[in-house]
Amino acid sequence: MALGGKRAEAARSNERVFLTGDGIPLTARERARQLLEITEKRDIAMDNYSLGGVVEELEHRMAQLLGKERAVFFATGTLANHMSVRLLAKGGRVLVQQESHLYRDEGDCAQRLSAINLVPLAPNKATFTLADVQEQVEAAEQGRVVMKVGAISIESPVRRQNGEVVPFSEMKAICEYARKRGIGTHLDGARVFLAAPYTGVSVKQYASLFDTVYVSTYKYFNSNFGAVLAGPDAMLKDLYHERRMFGGGVPHCWAEAAMALHFLDGFEQRYSQAVQTAEDAFKRLTKETGVEVRRIKPGSNIAFLRLKKAGADQAADRLKTAGVTVEAPKAAGADWCEIAVRTNETILRLPADEIARRMSGALRVG
Amino acid sequence: MALGGKRAEAARSNERVFLTGDGIPLTARERARQLLEITEKRDIAMDNYSLGGVVEELEHRMAQLLGKERAVFFATGTLANHMSVRLLAKGGRVLVQQESHLYRDEGDCAQRLSAINLVPLAPNKATFTLADVQEQVEAAEQGRVVMKVGAISIESPVRRQNGEVVPFSEMKAICEYARKRGIGTHLDGARVFLAAPYTGVSVKQYASLFDTVYVSTYKYFNSNFGAVLAGPDAMLKDLYHERRMFGGGVPHCWAEAAMALHFLDGFEQRYSQAVQTAEDAFKRLTKETGVEVRRIKPGSNIAFLRLKKAGADQAADRLKTAGVTVEAPKAAGADWCEIAVRTNETILRLPADEIARRMSGALRVG
Amino acid sequence: MALGGKRAEAARSNERVFLTGDGIPLTARERARQLLEITEKRDIAMDNYSLGGVVEELEHRMAQLLGKERAVFFATGTLANHMSVRLLAKGGRVLVQQESHLYRDEGDCAQRLSAINLVPLAPNKATFTLADVQEQVEAAEQGRVVMKVGAISIESPVRRQNGEVVPFSEMKAICEYARKRGIGTHLDGARVFLAAPYTGVSVKQYASLFDTVYVSTYKYFNSNFGAVLAGPDAMLKDLYHERRMFGGGVPHCWAEAAMALHFLDGFEQRYSQAVQTAEDAFKRLTKETGVEVRRIKPGSNIAFLRLKKAGADQAADRLKTAGVTVEAPKAAGADWCEIAVRTNETILRLPADEIARRMSGALRVG
Amino acid sequence: MALGGKRAEAARSNERVFLTGDGIPLTARERARQLLEITEKRDIAMDNYSLGGVVEELEHRMAQLLGKERAVFFATGTLANHMSVRLLAKGGRVLVQQESHLYRDEGDCAQRLSAINLVPLAPNKATFTLADVQEQVEAAEQGRVVMKVGAISIESPVRRQNGEVVPFSEMKAICEYARKRGIGTHLDGARVFLAAPYTGVSVKQYASLFDTVYVSTYKYFNSNFGAVLAGPDAMLKDLYHERRMFGGGVPHCWAEAAMALHFLDGFEQRYSQAVQTAEDAFKRLTKETGVEVRRIKPGSNIAFLRLKKAGADQAADRLKTAGVTVEAPKAAGADWCEIAVRTNETILRLPADEIARRMSGALRVG
Repeated sequence: MALGGKRAEAARSNERVFLTGDGIPLTARERARQLLEITEKRDIAMDNYSLGGVVEELEHRMAQLLGKERAVFFATGTLANHMSVRLLAKGGRVLVQQESHLYRDEGDCAQRLSAINLVPLAPNKATFTLADVQEQVEAAEQGRVVMKVGAISIESPVRRQNGEVVPFSEMKAICEYARKRGIGTHLDGARVFLAAPYTGVSVKQYASLFDTVYVSTYKYFNSNFGAVLAGPDAMLKDLYHERRMFGGGVPHCWAEAAMALHFLDGFEQRYSQAVQTAEDAFKRLTKETGVEVRRIKPGSNIAFLRLKKAGADQAADRLKTAGVTVEAPKAAGADWCEIAVRTNETILRLPADEIARRMSGALRVG
Repeated sequence: MALGGKRAEAARSNERVFLTGDGIPLTARERARQLLEITEKRDIAMDNYSLGGVVEELEHRMAQLLGKERAVFFATGTLANHMSVRLLAKGGRVLVQQESHLYRDEGDCAQRLSAINLVPLAPNKATFTLADVQEQVEAAEQGRVVMKVGAISIESPVRRQNGEVVPFSEMKAICEYARKRGIGTHLDGARVFLAAPYTGVSVKQYASLFDTVYVSTYKYFNSNFGAVLAGPDAMLKDLYHERRMFGGGVPHCWAEAAMALHFLDGFEQRYSQAVQTAEDAFKRLTKETGVEVRRIKPGSNIAFLRLKKAGADQAADRLKTAGVTVEAPKAAGADWCEIAVRTNETILRLPADEIARRMSGALRVG
Repeated sequence: MALGGKRAEAARSNERVFLTGDGIPLTARERARQLLEITEKRDIAMDNYSLGGVVEELEHRMAQLLGKERAVFFATGTLANHMSVRLLAKGGRVLVQQESHLYRDEGDCAQRLSAINLVPLAPNKATFTLADVQEQVEAAEQGRVVMKVGAISIESPVRRQNGEVVPFSEMKAICEYARKRGIGTHLDGARVFLAAPYTGVSVKQYASLFDTVYVSTYKYFNSNFGAVLAGPDAMLKDLYHERRMFGGGVPHCWAEAAMALHFLDGFEQRYSQAVQTAEDAFKRLTKETGVEVRRIKPGSNIAFLRLKKAGADQAADRLKTAGVTVEAPKAAGADWCEIAVRTNETILRLPADEIARRMSGALRVG
Repeated sequence: MALGGKRAEAARSNERVFLTGDGIPLTARERARQLLEITEKRDIAMDNYSLGGVVEELEHRMAQLLGKERAVFFATGTLANHMSVRLLAKGGRVLVQQESHLYRDEGDCAQRLSAINLVPLAPNKATFTLADVQEQVEAAEQGRVVMKVGAISIESPVRRQNGEVVPFSEMKAICEYARKRGIGTHLDGARVFLAAPYTGVSVKQYASLFDTVYVSTYKYFNSNFGAVLAGPDAMLKDLYHERRMFGGGVPHCWAEAAMALHFLDGFEQRYSQAVQTAEDAFKRLTKETGVEVRRIKPGSNIAFLRLKKAGADQAADRLKTAGVTVEAPKAAGADWCEIAVRTNETILRLPADEIARRMSGALRVG
């Protein structure tokens, strides 16, 4: 039967480990099936232009998790980040990492739509320092034309720096300095739930430093899209008018909120376990094969398998055949390649020793 | 059984006619079920940040239907309208209907994010005239500081004028004038598919007058959200960068594109039939009960049942009991009420004479 | 001798009455001579990028005259008006007269540079009413997307309505309503010093209603350029940074401040006397010749001599020959022409009866 | 007699050399006197809102000098720079020196009023390189969201780098690269007339590389204010509308245009001679006293006298007493001070050996 066939296919896919991406790769059909399951388990109240219903449920849940007064749903992190700095900056400059998503991957939205001067700091690095911030604030205030630094945005983990995290102590120093001077602070925490098991700092602790925090719901909570911006009630309570102005008043988002809530349940425990499993598997792999797993420090869920260039592509293919999907190897110097591997929930589909066994088998020959 | 119960409920709901809204009211569960059905019938290719896959399929289909070179998907009509006038206006003024969605319901997006001066014409009316346009163009060009009118946006049918349509001949005169002067033209055709059976002008004919056309996919094509902007290839081909800048680069929209394509199939035929059914039913109703059905002229799918104020609320309740959902009556003068009724696909659930029979029964007493 | 010749020419020009313009028409040479005279009478302290020196002196003087905490010099009224609504509106809409300078003659500056939605009221009229304001405020707040009216700007006298003034009582009602709702108010009082003798309301009384007031210094205070914006200290005290951002941080403006201060001294008395002289002259003219002097009601310093079309141009020429410069006649209906006449300080160069005598002589024949 | 006394004072001041500033320091009275002299020598046609008359005369003259089709007068260089990048960038990014006036001293005008992303290059240096430009252009075009670099602005000499000039060869390479890619180029040549005698590259040669050039008229042409933007006719011919939008449509600028034209006549010759005189004087000074004159390389009219810290302030005072005005010494390391000296036209008031004699006398003791 067709359906039976599909179920078998699903079962098989459920044994595959994907060391690619931050979440669980789901096909359109799997997503539709999951969504129906959720709607059959309970009555899902639809939202009206992203207001109310299960969207509001997600907003409340996220606000609580992040220790903030209020949270607002957005279709994209681009808009969540933009909206926050737009509101916090009040016409002043905004300090950002040069390698941040906000500076490099959002189409200059803050500059072109909100006429904000984003000042890029720390080129080619994950972290700028309190000293960098102080220098900028003073330069702005002491210019012939006095400018204000209105806000500081910090992304962590930093996608363009392979998931490197900004040290909590540096964040803390910067946010305390900012607070004293009336400068707003925003955490682009798209992947902040992925940092906690690596840094030992909880999502709530990270959030507590900043005025606002954005968290993605589509990367590891597996919705089709979605972002949540959390922060003070006074700042966010009328935000849906501005959201709509940007074309972000999406008529119905209930499906994404419902999916995100579903995967959010128990995520922190499952993900901790996934990280543990991956660490175990990688250790065994190195022990058994000598293959080095290079870590980013301080990092999060991205690591690199180092392989001799000769045979690296074949190794990747053998990994896939063994049920472990990986990205294509990339050159790392003259003789070496690296395969980026990401820890996500799919690693829980198999025990650590089984994963190590499969990977060792595939890599030993190479 | 739960599922059996749900199917029965669905069947019963399938006999109900909703004279409210432009599309088919679907619950979250019904939507999820419909989506699964679609994904099980064929493999739906997911999009990547609103690019490719079934989203591209919808874009091609819509471009063809509208006779345009290219179409681009947006999460909201707000952004589709805004993007079009932003590109067409090139820094100039944009003439709009004062009662249009773009002027009244989109949070001043064009003004606040694109720094465009929207000039509101024809207060409290559906249509501005060629003469209005000429006056504005001349005033702008002859001011002490010369300004340009960069674009003209026309909404039709006009939601805030009860679906009144802008006459095709007026549109034509305005668009020809505009073209000669290098002024861009945009049709906010969110509901343009609802106009054709009433005006005898096809969607493609409407679209042919304008540089760009926006059509909604969530109003009567029953997706959760979605909008398509169609127009010249040169103008739209790199638009996804700008779309992303606005926070409109939604990671996955495949579900909405798939739903819209599903309901788009055969829509024009079904909707023509629905209009015919409604017209028949309304005629019989008037003949049998004397209840007047007030039409907007020139109008589209909205009409008004005129009832004596006394007993109007009870009449609405009786209609619902008889399987015909309507909005609450609104006062229309001292002694009369009106109930707005909209023609949509649900009217096809019953034959015209059955609908007339149920409505007559409910209204005769009142 | 050249200089002697020039002095004689100056003397002669000093007997000429100009019923054109709001101030004293001075040639480049006359302006340079006047400026040198001022600088030789006392040491004029130069400003540094429009800060300090005689510019500050003018700012203090104007703040005092207008009863405001602070005043800031601008090179143009365009920027003074724009800056005020930019600061007052805080992202909200700004209500303006459709026929105002800000809406019609400033290049859409507020819309294009500050992304403000200016809402034009009262087309073809000088005055909008409290009811107009209330309607707009309510419409904005009750839209699907809630908007704020952030500020109201009123121009009076209105240049494009022939100097018609907005009634003080209407201004008062509007400003009181605005204050209660936290809506900022701005008076474009470019020509407000010209209204006082006609309305009996002092400049300070007008200014007292509004948060901010702009007054021109180049129209009747005879500087080459200049504008002063007066208002609350907190709003204006750091404005020179924003002024500079607009390119308005003119390196040295001392000359204009010095000229404006020179002509400001005693202006109110001299101008009252000029108005009295003009009124006397016009009355005598009508009495002696039957020529009607049409007044704007409620108006200020602009009136119209009504002449038969035949011979009107010749009459204007004869007026000039008689030492009374006037604008060219304009058609006013099929058979009549009108010559606009403006009262300014040059009318004090001759006694009322001498002016009437010269004008009667020139117009009687016509 | 007062006037006699003033003339004697003027004569004495005409023997003083000012090694401060780029032009001739004139008091308000001296300026007024100079202006009257100019207006008595010939009839100066006044401009109307910065259009026509002597302003147009200056524009033509400057266009010719710079080898451009057209030139437009502005009240400030801030607006001239801003307007140029606004027009050239067409919504794209603009590359600038981090230490440029446009990035550091103009109140973020391009970012806040024109929503342009200014990308700062070459921190703490005068010059960015072709390689820097290429890196930025490629990064923008290869991002996930494709951006364009729309324009490149180069300031030379660089005020914040002590008049250091950007090498002509680097400018040439950058401008050729830009032209090939359709990227606009702008020269902030506020002080470009000061560079020519030092670099041997003429003003016209500099200008020929760029689409547009801005030159200041108030720094060394001694007007109260003023800037000229020169470039292609098609780009600049309607610019006065935009200028007015910014509040830059100053009612009368004739006085500044007249002053600038006066000092522009013969400037290049006089200034070359001034540079020669200064070089001679500095060489003699060093020879006679051993005082080092530190030069910026490649530089323009700014140099530094190096003095032992002890006695430096007294030396500055003695210089002033000897008729050579200088700025206050600034610490340069533990034991040394430096006095910035600028070459301007006042150095022509005395022969080189007399200047050297006076300076040597004042510095020898120190």
